[in-house]
Amino acid sequence: MTEQTPHSATAAMTAAPGGRDPQETRALVDAELAPELTAGALVTDADVIGSYSQDEAIFCPGEGAVALVRATTIEDVQTTMRFASRHGVPVVPQGARTGISGGANAVPGCLLLSVEKMAEVLEVNTAERTVTVQPGIINQHLKDHLKPYGLSYPPDPGSVGISSIGGNVATNAGGLCCVKYGVTKDYVRQLKVVLADGSLATLGPRTAKGVAGLDLRGLFIGSEGTLGVVVEVTLRLVPQLADPLTAAATFPDEAAAASVVAEFMASGAQPSMLEMLDGATLVMLNDYGDFGLDADAGAMLLVQSDGSGDAATAQREVAAFSDIAEAGGALDVAASDDAADSEALVATRRLAHQAYEKYANEHGGGQLMDDVCLPRAQMAAFFDRLATLRAETGVVVAVVAHAGDGNLHPAVFFDVADDDQASRAHAVFDDLMQLGLDLGGTITGEHGVGYLKRQWLARELDPVTQQMHWAVKNALDPQGILNPGKMFAELQAAGG
Amino acid sequence: MTEQTPHSATAAMTAAPGGRDPQETRALVDAELAPELTAGALVTDADVIGSYSQDEAIFCPGEGAVALVRATTIEDVQTTMRFASRHGVPVVPQGARTGISGGANAVPGCLLLSVEKMAEVLEVNTAERTVTVQPGIINQHLKDHLKPYGLSYPPDPGSVGISSIGGNVATNAGGLCCVKYGVTKDYVRQLKVVLADGSLATLGPRTAKGVAGLDLRGLFIGSEGTLGVVVEVTLRLVPQLADPLTAAATFPDEAAAASVVAEFMASGAQPSMLEMLDGATLVMLNDYGDFGLDADAGAMLLVQSDGSGDAATAQREVAAFSDIAEAGGALDVAASDDAADSEALVATRRLAHQAYEKYANEHGGGQLMDDVCLPRAQMAAFFDRLATLRAETGVVVAVVAHAGDGNLHPAVFFDVADDDQASRAHAVFDDLMQLGLDLGGTITGEHGVGYLKRQWLARELDPVTQQMHWAVKNALDPQGILNPGKMFAELQAAGG
Repeated sequence: MTEQTPHSATAAMTAAPGGRDPQETRALVDAELAPELTAGALVTDADVIGSYSQDEAIFCPGEGAVALVRATTIEDVQTTMRFASRHGVPVVPQGARTGISGGANAVPGCLLLSVEKMAEVLEVNTAERTVTVQPGIINQHLKDHLKPYGLSYPPDPGSVGISSIGGNVATNAGGLCCVKYGVTKDYVRQLKVVLADGSLATLGPRTAKGVAGLDLRGLFIGSEGTLGVVVEVTLRLVPQLADPLTAAATFPDEAAAASVVAEFMASGAQPSMLEMLDGATLVMLNDYGDFGLDADAGAMLLVQSDGSGDAATAQREVAAFSDIAEAGGALDVAASDDAADSEALVATRRLAHQAYEKYANEHGGGQLMDDVCLPRAQMAAFFDRLATLRAETGVVVAVVAHAGDGNLHPAVFFDVADDDQASRAHAVFDDLMQLGLDLGGTITGEHGVGYLKRQWLARELDPVTQQMHWAVKNALDPQGILNPGKMFAELQAAGG
Repeated sequence: MTEQTPHSATAAMTAAPGGRDPQETRALVDAELAPELTAGALVTDADVIGSYSQDEAIFCPGEGAVALVRATTIEDVQTTMRFASRHGVPVVPQGARTGISGGANAVPGCLLLSVEKMAEVLEVNTAERTVTVQPGIINQHLKDHLKPYGLSYPPDPGSVGISSIGGNVATNAGGLCCVKYGVTKDYVRQLKVVLADGSLATLGPRTAKGVAGLDLRGLFIGSEGTLGVVVEVTLRLVPQLADPLTAAATFPDEAAAASVVAEFMASGAQPSMLEMLDGATLVMLNDYGDFGLDADAGAMLLVQSDGSGDAATAQREVAAFSDIAEAGGALDVAASDDAADSEALVATRRLAHQAYEKYANEHGGGQLMDDVCLPRAQMAAFFDRLATLRAETGVVVAVVAHAGDGNLHPAVFFDVADDDQASRAHAVFDDLMQLGLDLGGTITGEHGVGYLKRQWLARELDPVTQQMHWAVKNALDPQGILNPGKMFAELQAAGG
């Protein structure tokens, strides 16, 4: 009754495990779960449940949740998982629901389990340079909290102001600083997680080094709520980062900019940020606000160097970038050591998604956001192929990229009322992911698999690795109640 | 017959799974395995097998291997694992056998599977800053190979000149540079691994970022040959590191030195090396060679700063260290910007283990090497307790430490012919590990669990985490043929 085989995981998007009637689950929730939770943690109001049933993904289902638990303690999370395990009820763990792959979306018959209210800083340890937090704390709130201590937590996903650390851990979030400072997993020391059966495990020591047993801590980072619920996080910190120097360069086309990125990185540069905006993005940003961007340019690169704290090093690095950009056919190169100017430029870059939304709203509402990561040297080839795709299909594609990491975010636009255009847009979206794989890359550099890319994950991973995924999943969540129908839904089963 | 339950894992140190007679296994090897391997890969000479049956660990069993496979290709590894899986034969994967926890030691009835002959550099990619190698390449050989490209692979375990990259991955090796540059897992982009059943999996993309599925790559790093055999490694590289400045400071006692470490690190310093040698180590080193060390000092700190490439930053950092050391009661502080001087000092530090060996040889032969990692601020407390232990037991303990990481290597000496002394030494060894746990640390920062610390692993990990270990192990190696009787031997079984 409560056993869910790997093969039935896909079905979980359309029916509760075991086919239990949602009313029956609801009755069990009222009778058994409600009395054990912290007062107010259980929410059964349909409107509230509805507002918690989707993350920021577009075109992903998110229906059928039976109830919402807003946990305020680790015990709430354990109680919920014990209940779910006892009755084979699917559970969708949620942070701030800012993901864009549908990973936090409801599945039919599920409990939504939100940790957003668990948002405290538990300890700052300046000698060890660590911080221990509850999972619901917003990334930027943590950064702000650390400033008086002279410490930084570098990972800065585009969602830095709205996404939570628990969600960042669940998706191994990246961001703009990754090119020098790495991603979430590079900063996690210790996790406390609640497993499918409600038991609590402490994974990893808090010390700088540690090899006592398997790296289960690492296994949970990026597992998107399919193995357990992160309820406490100890993060490694670094001394406060120095203010960087910034340079911007415009190019006639994307391939030229991409070649400059590859050459600059191959020269041994260590920029603290290296972002790219294509021509379409520049036009959309200029339409969104007056940022003084050159909308006639085919691409722009934004580079920052913090010189690892040394101003002269930063100046040398920015000068080296300028030289390579000019030799690479830049239309214009401008450097600035003004902190306000720099911040304004980066803030503009961070507004790209809002600009895309405005464009989409004015052009039929359809937008698909891709997230391929390529070997840096293959970016120019990617843009060559994209130019052909645009010409062949007439589909509008705009690209922002964490270019120093080869991590591209092409946004594909279409009119949802125009079936033909929508179909061409989806085909372009797929073509770009396939192109990512063909060029030696991955289908997701930082957004995760969620619901959106579950079929593509099966294309990227070899059959043996797919079977290993199921073997590990079944070992830690034998009933398959944790976030079913997403990451694992299309993977080949063990022994399959 | 071939099924090995978790509970029988310990027994595998004394009997082959299923109790098969070694002669019978040997006959199967000759009949089925030999014809399928590359010519010369199978070794059945007892003397050669004997010389491959132990790593550098002291007091760990390593008997009963049936044959040795020196693989020259991935296919050799797959063939061996297919054979072993078919017949339930235990397999002990081996790199350069330089580990000191017995992780590469033979178990009764096993096949030794060495990848030391697979030692080629397959590709250096300067644009992506990656290198792809076979697992048998020696760490220092890789470093030398990369120099002409202006690229560095930072991890530098004490065994850098003799240990292999595959072994470094299997143990998540650390070293002197970790305090700034991290450990092996911080540099692994992609692994190819052969699983228990002989299948080959590619784990992780080679790109800078990637979140497509579970981080199985990370799960294999540090798994000590219990989940599979690493047959290819793609590593992230960094631009060649600048020559560092070096400073040395001596102190009246270890606790004073430890306090300076904690204060220096809390100040926001980012040394590229921060090592500590205690008074006993200084005496033993002076006895081993004429290094001009102050053998009257109670402790010495060695610090390096590379200033992330900027000489002025390095100078500032070394000056800051000198100030903190002097304020912290240093007997003497000396800085040097002479590369030869610096190298000589670090080379002396690296000779500590040889000096220990000389001392042990002259004092009854017994030596136990510990590897606790503590929160940095707890090091002084550790040394206070160690002083008491020394006084109470009369046991000689010398300590070298990657102090910036809180990673201590106390060596405990004794006369193997003196049962009472040996017993007291083992008790001190255990007390120091327990002290590590009591102070919020781990029983192994970088040496791994192997055979030596299998009981201690069960003390460090909570019961839920132990059961998770078995769940994952059984999922990926259901027969338990990979390196049995070591890391998992004493862990509580799933459902236990």
